Amino acid sequence: MSSTQGQVIRCKAAVAWEPGKPLVIEEVEVAPPQAMEVRLKILFTSLCHTDVYFWEAKGQTPIFPRIFGHEAAGIVESVGEGVTDLKPGDHVLPVFTGECKECRHCKSEESNMCDLLRINTDRGVMLNDGKSRFSINGKPIYHFVGTSTFSEYTVVHVGCVAKIDPEAPLDKVCVLSCGISTGLGATLNVAKPPKGSSVAIFGLGAVGLAAAEGARIAGASRIIGVDLNSNRFEEAKNFGVTEFVNPKDYNKPVQEVIAEMTNGGVDRSVECTGSINAMISAFECVHDGWGVAVLVGVPNKDDAFKTHPINVLNEKTLKGTFFGNYKPRSDLPSVVEKYMKKVST
Amino acid sequence: MSSTQGQVIRCKAAVAWEPGKPLVIEEVEVAPPQAMEVRLKILFTSLCHTDVYFWEAKGQTPIFPRIFGHEAAGIVESVGEGVTDLKPGDHVLPVFTGECKECRHCKSEESNMCDLLRINTDRGVMLNDGKSRFSINGKPIYHFVGTSTFSEYTVVHVGCVAKIDPEAPLDKVCVLSCGISTGLGATLNVAKPPKGSSVAIFGLGAVGLAAAEGARIAGASRIIGVDLNSNRFEEAKNFGVTEFVNPKDYNKPVQEVIAEMTNGGVDRSVECTGSINAMISAFECVHDGWGVAVLVGVPNKDDAFKTHPINVLNEKTLKGTFFGNYKPRSDLPSVVEKYMKKVST
Repeated sequence: MSSTQGQVIRCKAAVAWEPGKPLVIEEVEVAPPQAMEVRLKILFTSLCHTDVYFWEAKGQTPIFPRIFGHEAAGIVESVGEGVTDLKPGDHVLPVFTGECKECRHCKSEESNMCDLLRINTDRGVMLNDGKSRFSINGKPIYHFVGTSTFSEYTVVHVGCVAKIDPEAPLDKVCVLSCGISTGLGATLNVAKPPKGSSVAIFGLGAVGLAAAEGARIAGASRIIGVDLNSNRFEEAKNFGVTEFVNPKDYNKPVQEVIAEMTNGGVDRSVECTGSINAMISAFECVHDGWGVAVLVGVPNKDDAFKTHPINVLNEKTLKGTFFGNYKPRSDLPSVVEKYMKKVST
Repeated sequence: MSSTQGQVIRCKAAVAWEPGKPLVIEEVEVAPPQAMEVRLKILFTSLCHTDVYFWEAKGQTPIFPRIFGHEAAGIVESVGEGVTDLKPGDHVLPVFTGECKECRHCKSEESNMCDLLRINTDRGVMLNDGKSRFSINGKPIYHFVGTSTFSEYTVVHVGCVAKIDPEAPLDKVCVLSCGISTGLGATLNVAKPPKGSSVAIFGLGAVGLAAAEGARIAGASRIIGVDLNSNRFEEAKNFGVTEFVNPKDYNKPVQEVIAEMTNGGVDRSVECTGSINAMISAFECVHDGWGVAVLVGVPNKDDAFKTHPINVLNEKTLKGTFFGNYKPRSDLPSVVEKYMKKVST
């Protein structure tokens, strides 16, 4: 049993006091976990663009002061009442979206959009009592997507914690708790490219590279990377990308370029930019009859996805995915295993 | 061997001389079938709205004089060179779209959009020689979608002919060659509602009723019919529809009405009207996480399908289908069998 169990922990955290202002390292108090909560010692955390987006708070409800951070890895320090499948010392990944295992989504094989613990960027408190577990001199500091990993200790709902192989290097697997799984799962769980098929990946950032890696693992024979930044092409080869298209190099829509390269369209496409035009191109560039396009990138609030319905009637499929359709508690351990075994095919 | 084999047949046909003008029953000459063609004696033909649409020829290339008709049943009179899987006397359904069995689409399990014989409303001649088989006093009368069943005899590519059980009543099964299969297949082959699921059917015409029947066969427990004409609701009960929504009865979008009726959305929807607004509603009314919307109705040329991409990212799937994803030669015989066996569950 940890000596800190049941006690308030004082530790360092990077606090965002105001939108867009530099984070400040402060000493914060972290209350013990309540029912169905877990307190984690965070060992590694990375920075995802979503943290930046909500830190800038342009157009969203600003909730400050707040502790950001959601791509991380750590060790369970203590658990609250009712927590039976985690214990102090377990190695874990906190996840920004959860899995209650009870709701219709959790019980569906197709969905990972848990009714209880689905990502909520507007909530800065814990579900249990509507309060924050962080404070400075009694003043609450709010949570972010239930994780707040820019703190040495954080409190998370047990449904947002994936227990992983204790042998896994936490400094590496921390990135599996968000972007990498999102891209990898988009391809492996949703696009499901058949062996020998062609796949277009829109956007070669971390998510897109993970999506390309998914296509490589699935055995796709052509993986076409699409990005406005040609400098990304060289690195992308390491993730299985075999051909590159920079839409700026053509004076026609990229979906037409891809259709010409592939005798009518790719078998699958995965959109990882969040640009509405890329989303439309990703849909329109798949082959009629069997093509499947998967949207991953998060669009702007006022975007409209617009296409001629004949593109749908020609037997193209449009799908979307959230966190690569992985259920965080059930599926993330196997993603970590994939990394541990360096699964390449 | 038929006494007419190899001869020109003179018979009656309903000829459309000009767009929108009444069809005229004329005596036409029907040339013998050439390589890979079949000459059929048409015993029954029905009228589909697509015939009317191209007869009106508003906005399409007008091809006249022309013999319309594509929902029909008949008997093979004679076959051309190279035809081995049909012989005189076979009972058949001519189909407006074909199956060459050689192209990538025909070889794909997912597609029925044959490269060679996919519906072509702009072609009024046979593929073999680019000529018509119909004439009056030497003047060609053009074909329509390769079938032209408003004639006692017609010539059809062998790839557009489904051989069926000779016991099947041709006056009944003729409608399986277009609308009924389109609706039935949209549900059974594409939407694939799980047993006990909820399904919304937009449009309760022949195609929509067949789609509802598909949902009933699949074991859906709630089948919600949506139509602007409430008179259609009573008849629809015979096809499995359990609940009705007339969008005119509400002052909010029908997708919201359906979401409220179903705790967040239906599991599947099938759009059978061709109205762009119905298409958008059909997509937006499915449940996040697992909902699948299938578009069947043919839109107008200038329509745009428009939705917020977050609807896609919330793990809804949008699919389209053409002829219910049935491959005409391979699959239609089994649809006729379903009718013969009165398969009800």
